[in-house]
Amino acid sequence: MNEVEAVLARAASAREASRARWFELLRIPSVSAQPQHAPDCRRAAEWVAARLREVGFTANVRGTAGHPVVVAQHPGPTGTGPHLLFYGHYDVQPPEPLELWTSPPFEPVLAEGPNGPRVVARGAVDDKGQTMTWLEALRFWHEAAGGPPCRVTVLVEGEEEIGSRNLPEFLEAHAEELRADVAVVSDTNMWDARTPAITTRLRGMLYTQVDIRAADRDLHSGLFGGSALNPINLLARILGDLRDEAGEILIPGFYEDVPELPPALRAQWDALGFDEAAFLSGVGLSVPAGEMGRGALERLWARPTADINGIWGGYTGDGSKTVIPGEAHAKVSFRLVPGQSPAKILAGFRDFIVARLPEDAQVKIQVFSMSEGIEVPSDSRHVAAARGTLEAAFGRAPVLAGCGGSIPVVSHMKQILGMDSLLVGFGLADDQVHSPNEKFDLACFERGIDAHIRLLDALARG
Amino acid sequence: MNEVEAVLARAASAREASRARWFELLRIPSVSAQPQHAPDCRRAAEWVAARLREVGFTANVRGTAGHPVVVAQHPGPTGTGPHLLFYGHYDVQPPEPLELWTSPPFEPVLAEGPNGPRVVARGAVDDKGQTMTWLEALRFWHEAAGGPPCRVTVLVEGEEEIGSRNLPEFLEAHAEELRADVAVVSDTNMWDARTPAITTRLRGMLYTQVDIRAADRDLHSGLFGGSALNPINLLARILGDLRDEAGEILIPGFYEDVPELPPALRAQWDALGFDEAAFLSGVGLSVPAGEMGRGALERLWARPTADINGIWGGYTGDGSKTVIPGEAHAKVSFRLVPGQSPAKILAGFRDFIVARLPEDAQVKIQVFSMSEGIEVPSDSRHVAAARGTLEAAFGRAPVLAGCGGSIPVVSHMKQILGMDSLLVGFGLADDQVHSPNEKFDLACFERGIDAHIRLLDALARG
Repeated sequence: MNEVEAVLARAASAREASRARWFELLRIPSVSAQPQHAPDCRRAAEWVAARLREVGFTANVRGTAGHPVVVAQHPGPTGTGPHLLFYGHYDVQPPEPLELWTSPPFEPVLAEGPNGPRVVARGAVDDKGQTMTWLEALRFWHEAAGGPPCRVTVLVEGEEEIGSRNLPEFLEAHAEELRADVAVVSDTNMWDARTPAITTRLRGMLYTQVDIRAADRDLHSGLFGGSALNPINLLARILGDLRDEAGEILIPGFYEDVPELPPALRAQWDALGFDEAAFLSGVGLSVPAGEMGRGALERLWARPTADINGIWGGYTGDGSKTVIPGEAHAKVSFRLVPGQSPAKILAGFRDFIVARLPEDAQVKIQVFSMSEGIEVPSDSRHVAAARGTLEAAFGRAPVLAGCGGSIPVVSHMKQILGMDSLLVGFGLADDQVHSPNEKFDLACFERGIDAHIRLLDALARG
Repeated sequence: MNEVEAVLARAASAREASRARWFELLRIPSVSAQPQHAPDCRRAAEWVAARLREVGFTANVRGTAGHPVVVAQHPGPTGTGPHLLFYGHYDVQPPEPLELWTSPPFEPVLAEGPNGPRVVARGAVDDKGQTMTWLEALRFWHEAAGGPPCRVTVLVEGEEEIGSRNLPEFLEAHAEELRADVAVVSDTNMWDARTPAITTRLRGMLYTQVDIRAADRDLHSGLFGGSALNPINLLARILGDLRDEAGEILIPGFYEDVPELPPALRAQWDALGFDEAAFLSGVGLSVPAGEMGRGALERLWARPTADINGIWGGYTGDGSKTVIPGEAHAKVSFRLVPGQSPAKILAGFRDFIVARLPEDAQVKIQVFSMSEGIEVPSDSRHVAAARGTLEAAFGRAPVLAGCGGSIPVVSHMKQILGMDSLLVGFGLADDQVHSPNEKFDLACFERGIDAHIRLLDALARG
């Protein structure tokens, strides 16, 4: 039995202990968006640091302007050679609405699903479950081989679900310590329950809040209607202009830096046979609503979007109130593709709004998140290593996939540390990420541990 | 001293007692929109009935599907001759937001204002204060002359602020009893602090709620953006299309039944010298926002509007949440002018929405209020009588004004009882109706009592 087989055997003999540790972490309600859970966020960070210390790492919890970051180091067997950075996040989305959960969100339970047992809890997969796959892999390397096969640094943050807003500054302050050959990130999905995937594209994001103000008080719509500016009508008009009937975004210059998909990549994606009708019918829809004339995966992975994520203003209670309010608000976000600059899109969006503002309206645009789209060179040695290990772990060649979501840290690590990321995740499309009854299939969790054990071996060979 | 002078003298000698009764009514928090205040609504109705019994009326409180209605009768001196119906409402708007009040909304206080003393409370003017002007006039006719000078019926409802929704059925059920020669309604304003007004036009209203549904759950905007329909974008697009840049409403046929203003009326309104710049600057605005190319009073009194009174959907908390929600909502109301049919406008609005709905979206339109615009013949004998009495009470000829607001009951009384209304009110533009710190100037209240004493005399002469 060689070294990696011994580590795999060790993992296979300790499935229940792995699950118990995972459940411990899931029981900590580390909701980063809710201030009352700040102590829980710290508790989750301390928990992760303690587990890393148990397996030979030097680990500490470092403060930021927000929730703390866990940083840990292991020199590996020689102190030289390849250096890997593992990234994860211990924070989770708010569990609300609670009434839609079938079990309490922070009391993980094992339930039966179509792919066998699954664990249901907030964070089951995103990203506590995924983070645990490589934490457990590091544990079994420690237990069966005395430590990881190469130098490893760990970075686990607590603000991913609120835009990683303090992470850029943290990366800048600790750049020397954190810069490695590649960052391994498990926060993405498999292609399907049997087929692993390496994500080689992520969309970037610009997330804004638009606040429009008109009169300095609420007005009676009978006495003022026909004379006073209505900021909700104005907001609807501006945001209604964002896209045309064919789904094209109308901000001038918006598509300037959007490259057309290379024909080879388009052919590769077409060959995946993605069933958009099934994808949509799973959520009660039937007709694609993005840009007309583009393929489904192209729209989801390689085209930008403009979505209103929230809107509010005026009277929103039961019945009627005849008010022309003084203000109106919306959350508007753009998914961006590699090549687009979030700052340039923000400037274009601002100009788009200002051009439509009458004299009596003021606008404020708050920015909550800015990150560039990411494209990982799919012919790199890291991707090659991951392809081999995933095929070994799953008995199937992985798909090179895109992802429509954004992982701002991947863009930050590229920009600030100059590092590419290797995105290998074990989630499934039906995991209910960010929704009630979030789950992670037990088989995905356990194969994820095995894949990471193999990946450490492969990447350690350089 | 003739009879009417004796009644006026009696009123002048009892100002404090009038104010004390008015304060008693203001202390009852009869907020019709808030279910917890249903007992207070009944209490206010009982209070009004008791006061009417004190002055010789047969009065009772009658149940409806909502808040009760007070009906009272006095045969007058002969039981024959003119028959007047006095209409008022005892319910008030919710006082929220409470933190903006300088004194508790249901503890009336006397404060100094630019026009002398004023009473500050929710309902100070709308409509408890205005209702008290004629209740007190009836009291002094009783005290100084043994009763009103003609037959009088009283109707005081408790659902005006929530669209008088049970009143049409009530009017139909009690039509014989309530039908009079004319309805006297005090729920409108004076032209300015020194100049009385008779309102001869009211706009009607259609108040709706639009609910749009798409996916059967909230979706992640990264995973679904570019494929899934976003109901907020759709709602913004539909409502943004409602008006063009010149302020014209784009529902097909919307203006079909809107008459152009007769030149004589336009000239009369122009002569009033309404200062729209001052009207707007009072609320922090500077540029008229209605239809371009129309006069200010025309836009406010004789042109229809389409205002979004409220909008909501998706994530509206702090920071960011990357959601494509399953639904989006808006309250949309139309002020209508005499000639427009609310039902026809509703059908047009529905068609307008449905024409813009993609296959995956469902719409529900709830209707909270429907009333026609009103035009009172300004050459009627009732208007002539009111002109004379207001000139006598105020020392100035009244302005024949329009009003941009809607008093659904006026339309219901016209349609169901075939009665015209005489709209004589004593509010001022700065009364903060429906807003925090609602007030009624004491001088307006007291002159209102005197004007109603004279009006009873004039209308009793037939």
